[in-house]
Amino acid sequence: MLNFEFQNPVHVLFGKGEIAKLSHLLKNKKKVMITFGGGSIKKNGVYQQVVNALEGISFVEFGGIEPNPRYETLMEAVALAKKEGVDFLLAVGGGSVIDGTKFIAQAICYEGSDPFDVYRKRLPITKAIELGSVLTLSATGSEMNMFTVVTKGKDKLGYGHPLLYPKFSIIDPTVMFSLPKKQVANGIVDAFVHVTEQYLTYPVNTPLQDRIAEGILLTLLEEGPKVMSNLEDYDARANMVWCCTMALNGIIGVGVVHDWATHGIGHELTALQGIDHGRTLAVVLPSLLRVQKDKKKEKLLQFANRVFGINESDENKAIELGIKAMEEFFHSLEVPTTLGDYGLDRSFIEEVKENLRSRQFGALGEHQDIDLEKVGLILEGAL
Amino acid sequence: MLNFEFQNPVHVLFGKGEIAKLSHLLKNKKKVMITFGGGSIKKNGVYQQVVNALEGISFVEFGGIEPNPRYETLMEAVALAKKEGVDFLLAVGGGSVIDGTKFIAQAICYEGSDPFDVYRKRLPITKAIELGSVLTLSATGSEMNMFTVVTKGKDKLGYGHPLLYPKFSIIDPTVMFSLPKKQVANGIVDAFVHVTEQYLTYPVNTPLQDRIAEGILLTLLEEGPKVMSNLEDYDARANMVWCCTMALNGIIGVGVVHDWATHGIGHELTALQGIDHGRTLAVVLPSLLRVQKDKKKEKLLQFANRVFGINESDENKAIELGIKAMEEFFHSLEVPTTLGDYGLDRSFIEEVKENLRSRQFGALGEHQDIDLEKVGLILEGAL
Repeated sequence: MLNFEFQNPVHVLFGKGEIAKLSHLLKNKKKVMITFGGGSIKKNGVYQQVVNALEGISFVEFGGIEPNPRYETLMEAVALAKKEGVDFLLAVGGGSVIDGTKFIAQAICYEGSDPFDVYRKRLPITKAIELGSVLTLSATGSEMNMFTVVTKGKDKLGYGHPLLYPKFSIIDPTVMFSLPKKQVANGIVDAFVHVTEQYLTYPVNTPLQDRIAEGILLTLLEEGPKVMSNLEDYDARANMVWCCTMALNGIIGVGVVHDWATHGIGHELTALQGIDHGRTLAVVLPSLLRVQKDKKKEKLLQFANRVFGINESDENKAIELGIKAMEEFFHSLEVPTTLGDYGLDRSFIEEVKENLRSRQFGALGEHQDIDLEKVGLILEGAL
Repeated sequence: MLNFEFQNPVHVLFGKGEIAKLSHLLKNKKKVMITFGGGSIKKNGVYQQVVNALEGISFVEFGGIEPNPRYETLMEAVALAKKEGVDFLLAVGGGSVIDGTKFIAQAICYEGSDPFDVYRKRLPITKAIELGSVLTLSATGSEMNMFTVVTKGKDKLGYGHPLLYPKFSIIDPTVMFSLPKKQVANGIVDAFVHVTEQYLTYPVNTPLQDRIAEGILLTLLEEGPKVMSNLEDYDARANMVWCCTMALNGIIGVGVVHDWATHGIGHELTALQGIDHGRTLAVVLPSLLRVQKDKKKEKLLQFANRVFGINESDENKAIELGIKAMEEFFHSLEVPTTLGDYGLDRSFIEEVKENLRSRQFGALGEHQDIDLEKVGLILEGAL
């Protein structure tokens, strides 16, 4: 096991009816800004639940944060928050709204000219205003971590800082019942790949972290289809939703090496083509695992055996069967796994490489060995 | 899944050499009190590592906190801390030292006449001074939770409050290399039973929590014997030690019902006979599972199958085989599983019942159905 530090201070409130506790959680705030996305929360009753719970607490609202939240939109929210003297941000939404709200939290306090420099130059921040979340779409794990991904122009970039942990996150599975199936499926894939980015890496001797990672994958395999066939199955949804949070709250990532190349490449597909985040991962991961299979061999064999029950003595065959079983799982959720499915061809690969080149791209992966050429190979494999 | 709230703010620093970070962690403290046990830390170099790291920080020390820390000893520490104007407690030891230090932390601020009333009457505390820990014996999980158990007279009682979370805990597996085998074995059993108290309960539909619990048990089964056969195997020790922390930091306990009757009864064996905590659990648990096997049936079958690989169609046989396999695991660690092994007979059972009666004992267990009579049955089964 590698040395590590771990601290995750997020207060999670999980289950039906927990939104009502907002009144208690926010009782000492002067002015709250509610941030949200396209407005579905006003149709499905979540907005009303939040507003009811805020009775007596002063608030303003900022809607319209888009999927893959954009700098320009978020800067409007920053201006409003400054004008209104907001002292707490309440993100009511999925990963994009929470990620965007983390950007707002630091941008309000940022003293330079462009708060996106924090993401671009990985500047250490020293201040951020507090935020909390009411999760309406489980996928990214943003509700229980310090990470945020924001897009400016063609750059979709991530950032993380302990000041960006939500003070609390309310996860009520019932508020997700009305989500479209496609978004549910994307969330399952996103969580699945969050696990593989930490688990399918150069092997470190960490059997407990392995078993927890496998536990999340197995639970997604078992509960995911139940949710897809009955969107209002509370237990299945609660279990799936908790997997999404646990996949990226740090617990499975302690003492191990991390990959994150699938995310790095996937972000390009979103930035350049607008493909949903979870869906980009389903395109990149299978090909990446094939390209990296010698280095990841030990873990890929364990993955095939423990997650998909594959008993095959030929190691190459076993690994391929494991990757194929994963692809089939993604297909069963109606999530495609090739660039061709999005009408993209070789010319797109050149576009990705050009975009990376323009950002002085170095390398990705747990060995930092996925250079521009290898990104090309991975995308070729995903055609 | 049941509704739950989860928040664990402890900053864990894990791995070889992490003690040196104390200087940074404590840099703003006015006066630290180092608390420790029988003095082994002065022989094995841990004390010196701590003192080196504290260079420039003012500190006093209080040694002599015994296993199953006693009220009278801890009140001496409280008096010293008050006299010295201590603003931070640094527990350097195992579960007993950390538990005792949590008592000291609240007792310094307690305004009534007897700080043990907090434990006896479960009073909500409103103040405690900050504490941190350098763990020297993995077992109780106290380094990453808010719980504490202290003994006064014949009462060994537990208490928990968020103000009692350590601010940080340093877990360096190498400082545990010099522990006697018996203490290592006790720690493995303690962690094992912490898991079963949360996992082998009336079934709630929580497949992820189940798999994480099973992951800890499987890792203890695999890594425990490696540690016992080579006390200086870093990886095995690190994995075992992390299992102990994860067994009782709240992660596997969310959304499920909890038992804790094995601990409740075990504490009597320690209070009345001085049997090591971990060893009391190995005596009580097998018999408790047999007495409760109808109510715990579903989980006991899963436990037998997933943890011990038992495939047996007769349910009663499968459950018994699982419990027997667990007993054999305890025996392999040279931990006995009957009262007879400690020279105790029926008269002792009466003594336990008398002691419980004197405390107006109600009931234990996830169904609150383990009354005085059932405690007797469980101890009979453990003769």
